[in-house]
Amino acid sequence: MTEQTKIDELVTNCAKEALAASRVMANLPAHRKNVALLKMAEMLERRTDELLAANARDVEAARIGGLSGAMLDRLLLDPKRIAKIALGVRQVAELPDPVGEQLEKSVRPNGLDIRKVRVPIGVIGIIYESRPNVTIDCAVLCFKSGNACLLRGGRESYHSNVALVKCVHEVLESEGLPKASVSFIETTERYALHRLLKLDQYVHCIIPRGGEGLIRMVTEEAHMPVIKHYKGVCNAYIDKAADKDMAVKIVTNAKVQRPGVCNAIENLVVHQDVVDSVFPYVARSLVRNGVELRCDVRSRMALEAFGGFSNLKDASEDDYHEEYLDLVIAVRVVHDTEAAIQFVNTYGSAHSDVIISGDEAAAKAFMAGVDSATVYWNASTRFTDGFEFGMGAEIGISTDKLHARGPMGLKELTTYKYVIYGQGQIRS
Amino acid sequence: MTEQTKIDELVTNCAKEALAASRVMANLPAHRKNVALLKMAEMLERRTDELLAANARDVEAARIGGLSGAMLDRLLLDPKRIAKIALGVRQVAELPDPVGEQLEKSVRPNGLDIRKVRVPIGVIGIIYESRPNVTIDCAVLCFKSGNACLLRGGRESYHSNVALVKCVHEVLESEGLPKASVSFIETTERYALHRLLKLDQYVHCIIPRGGEGLIRMVTEEAHMPVIKHYKGVCNAYIDKAADKDMAVKIVTNAKVQRPGVCNAIENLVVHQDVVDSVFPYVARSLVRNGVELRCDVRSRMALEAFGGFSNLKDASEDDYHEEYLDLVIAVRVVHDTEAAIQFVNTYGSAHSDVIISGDEAAAKAFMAGVDSATVYWNASTRFTDGFEFGMGAEIGISTDKLHARGPMGLKELTTYKYVIYGQGQIRS
Repeated sequence: MTEQTKIDELVTNCAKEALAASRVMANLPAHRKNVALLKMAEMLERRTDELLAANARDVEAARIGGLSGAMLDRLLLDPKRIAKIALGVRQVAELPDPVGEQLEKSVRPNGLDIRKVRVPIGVIGIIYESRPNVTIDCAVLCFKSGNACLLRGGRESYHSNVALVKCVHEVLESEGLPKASVSFIETTERYALHRLLKLDQYVHCIIPRGGEGLIRMVTEEAHMPVIKHYKGVCNAYIDKAADKDMAVKIVTNAKVQRPGVCNAIENLVVHQDVVDSVFPYVARSLVRNGVELRCDVRSRMALEAFGGFSNLKDASEDDYHEEYLDLVIAVRVVHDTEAAIQFVNTYGSAHSDVIISGDEAAAKAFMAGVDSATVYWNASTRFTDGFEFGMGAEIGISTDKLHARGPMGLKELTTYKYVIYGQGQIRS
Repeated sequence: MTEQTKIDELVTNCAKEALAASRVMANLPAHRKNVALLKMAEMLERRTDELLAANARDVEAARIGGLSGAMLDRLLLDPKRIAKIALGVRQVAELPDPVGEQLEKSVRPNGLDIRKVRVPIGVIGIIYESRPNVTIDCAVLCFKSGNACLLRGGRESYHSNVALVKCVHEVLESEGLPKASVSFIETTERYALHRLLKLDQYVHCIIPRGGEGLIRMVTEEAHMPVIKHYKGVCNAYIDKAADKDMAVKIVTNAKVQRPGVCNAIENLVVHQDVVDSVFPYVARSLVRNGVELRCDVRSRMALEAFGGFSNLKDASEDDYHEEYLDLVIAVRVVHDTEAAIQFVNTYGSAHSDVIISGDEAAAKAFMAGVDSATVYWNASTRFTDGFEFGMGAEIGISTDKLHARGPMGLKELTTYKYVIYGQGQIRS
C-alpha cells in the first residue's frame, strides 16, 4: 500500500465513522450531552500535567523550527489557559440546546401538518492552524449542537491536540457515546487535508479558521459548503452630524483596544464637513495611542492645518484594501453618506462597519446601504463576537451570505428539517 | 482580443453590473417591485407572438439536432404556457415581501440594541437547461426577494430566453429600475459558464437546475456556495402497523402520479411482518398502474406465494441507488424500523421519505432518524413542493444541509444582517 493510499483510507474511515456517530448525536437528549461536557471539563483539568507535557513537545519543535514570538504564544498552553478552556466547556454545557426547536408550523388546507424543526447539520469539518484551544472550543460547540466534528489541526500543535482529544475520548467512552463524534485526523500530512475536502458524501460543512491563504485554499478545493471569513477590513465613518467626543471614543476603541483581531477597524472614512473640526481630535487620539495614519490629500491637509502631527503617510489604493491587524489606519474623506457607503462596500470585507452620527436619516441610510454582516450606529465594531452578542460562545464569524452571517454560535451549527404529519393525504 | 478574452469580459461585466443592480434592489420598497411584476406579466402576454416566434427557432434547431419527444416538449412554448408563466408572475407579486422582516432582537446589558433583519442575498446565479419558463420563474422570485439574478440558460432555449428577458428589460427600463437586476448571459459558449463559476466577488450564490451531470460540474467548479439537489431518490416504508388501504393509496400516488419528478418514490421498504399481508396489495396496485417491480428475495417470495404476478425482476444493489424517474420501483424487506431508517439513510438522497404506520412510536423514530429534508408520516412524498408547502412558488428544492433545506421560496432567497443601535458603547 502506498503512503497516499494509507492516508486515503485513514481520512475516509475517519469521515465515515463521524457520519455514523452524527446519527447517534442527532437524537441525544440535552442532559446526556451536558453531563458529558461537564466531565470533559473535569478531565481536562485533571490531565493538566499530561497536556502540558504534550504541549511542551510542540513548543520545543516550533522553537527549533524558528517560530516567532506571537506565533509561539498562540501555541502555548499553561495551567491558566487550560483552566480557561475547561471553563469554556462548562459554559457551553449551560447554554440551551438548540436541537428540536420548532421554527415554523403550518396546517395546510388538506390537513397536512407541516413542522419546520431545528436539527444538527451532521458532520462539521474544522480546519485550523496552531492554537490548540480551538480543538476543544470547536469540539464542544459541535457536540452540544448534536453534530459530529472532524478536526484537522495544524502541524505545530499536533501533540497538544492529540492529548486534548484523548481527554474527550475517555469521557465519551465512559458515557457510552461514540468516540467518533469528536474525530481527529491523526496525521499532519498535507495530502490528508486535500482528501478530506473531497468527501462531501460524509462531511456536510467545513469551517476553516486561520490565515487568508489557508481559507482560500479550502474554499477553492472543498466539494462541500464552507463557512468562513477571509479577513476583517472593518470601517468607521464619521458623518457630518457626528458628536466629536463620541467619534474620538469609538474610533480609538475600534482601532487600538485590540488591533490584531478581525473586528478592529482598518479604514476611517470622514465626511468633508467635519474633516477640519472633528477629525483632527480623532487623529490626535489615535496617534497618542501609537497609530500610524495613512491619509488621502484632503485629510492630510486638515491635519497639517490643525498642527501637531508628524510622520503622516500618504494612503495608496492598496492601503484601503489592507487588513493591517496592527496600529495602522487608512483615512479617506468623502462628500456625503452615499459616498461613504460606496467606500465601505468597495474596500471593506463585509464584516463590521460603523457610522458615527447624530442624524437618524444618515444612520438608517448607512445601515441599509452597507452590505455587511454587522452594521453599527454609534458603537464600536469590537462588539462583533459571539459572547458579546449573547450567544455564549462562537465557532467563528462569517462574512458569507448563505446559512450564517456574523458571529456563529450553537444555532448556526444547526439546520432544519420538515416533519410532516398526514392522515393519508395524496396529491391529485 | 481572443474569443476567450471577449467572453471573460462579457461575463465579468454582466456580473459586475448585476452586483451594482443588487444594491438598488436591496432597498426597493415592495410596492415598486409589485408594480413592475404586474407589468412584466402583462408584457409577456402582449408579446406572445414574438415569444412564440423566438421559441419556434429554438424548437426547429432542436428538432434538426435530433432532440427527443420529452426534451422537445420541455422546450416548447405555446399560448397556454405563456399565459401560465404570466399567471405565476402575478402570483409572486401577491406574495408578502420577505425583505426587512425582523428575525430577532436583543438588548444587551450594555444597552446595545442588536436586531437581526432579513435582507436579500445579493446576486444569485441560475444555471439551467432547456425549459424557458425557468427564465421567468427564477427572475421574478429573485426580483421579488430584492436580489439581482444572473441567468445562464441552456443552448437549446437560447432565443426563447433572449425574447423573455427582453420583455422583462422593457418593463425595468420603463419603471426606472436597473436592467442588470435581471441579467442574462448572452452567449451559449461553455467557457462562459466556467468563468461565471469563479466570480465569487460578484456572485453570492449559484442555484443549478437540471441533470445530475450539470449539477456535479457546477458544484465542483464553483467558488461561491451552491444550493442544489443532485437527485431525488425518495423512499416509502410500510411499517408493520401500516393500514393496508392507506399503504396502497400513498405508495401508488407517490410512485405513479407523476413518476418523472424528484419527489416521486423510487424505493419501497417493507416490514417483514406485513410482507405477505399488506405488501401484495400495494404491489398489485403498482403493477396495475404499469409499474415494474424489482424485488429482493423475500418480497419476491411473498408475491409468488400470493400469485397473479408475472415479470417480477430481481433488484440489484445499484437499483436501490437509482433515480428511475420512470414506472419502476425497487423493493427491500427489513426486520424493523431501525433497519428501515438505515436503508433510507444509505440509499436515499435526503429528499423526501415517508413512513406508513398506525404506530406513533415507530413514526416518531422514523421521522427523527431519517436524515432528509422532508420526512412524512402517512402522506405522499409528492407534496414536497413550494406551492404545496404554502410558499407560493419555489426556486428549487435543496437536499443540502446549509442555508436552506427542502422547497425554497422567497424567504430562502434571503439572508440576514445584524443592525446594531448604540449610544457610544465601546469594548473594554
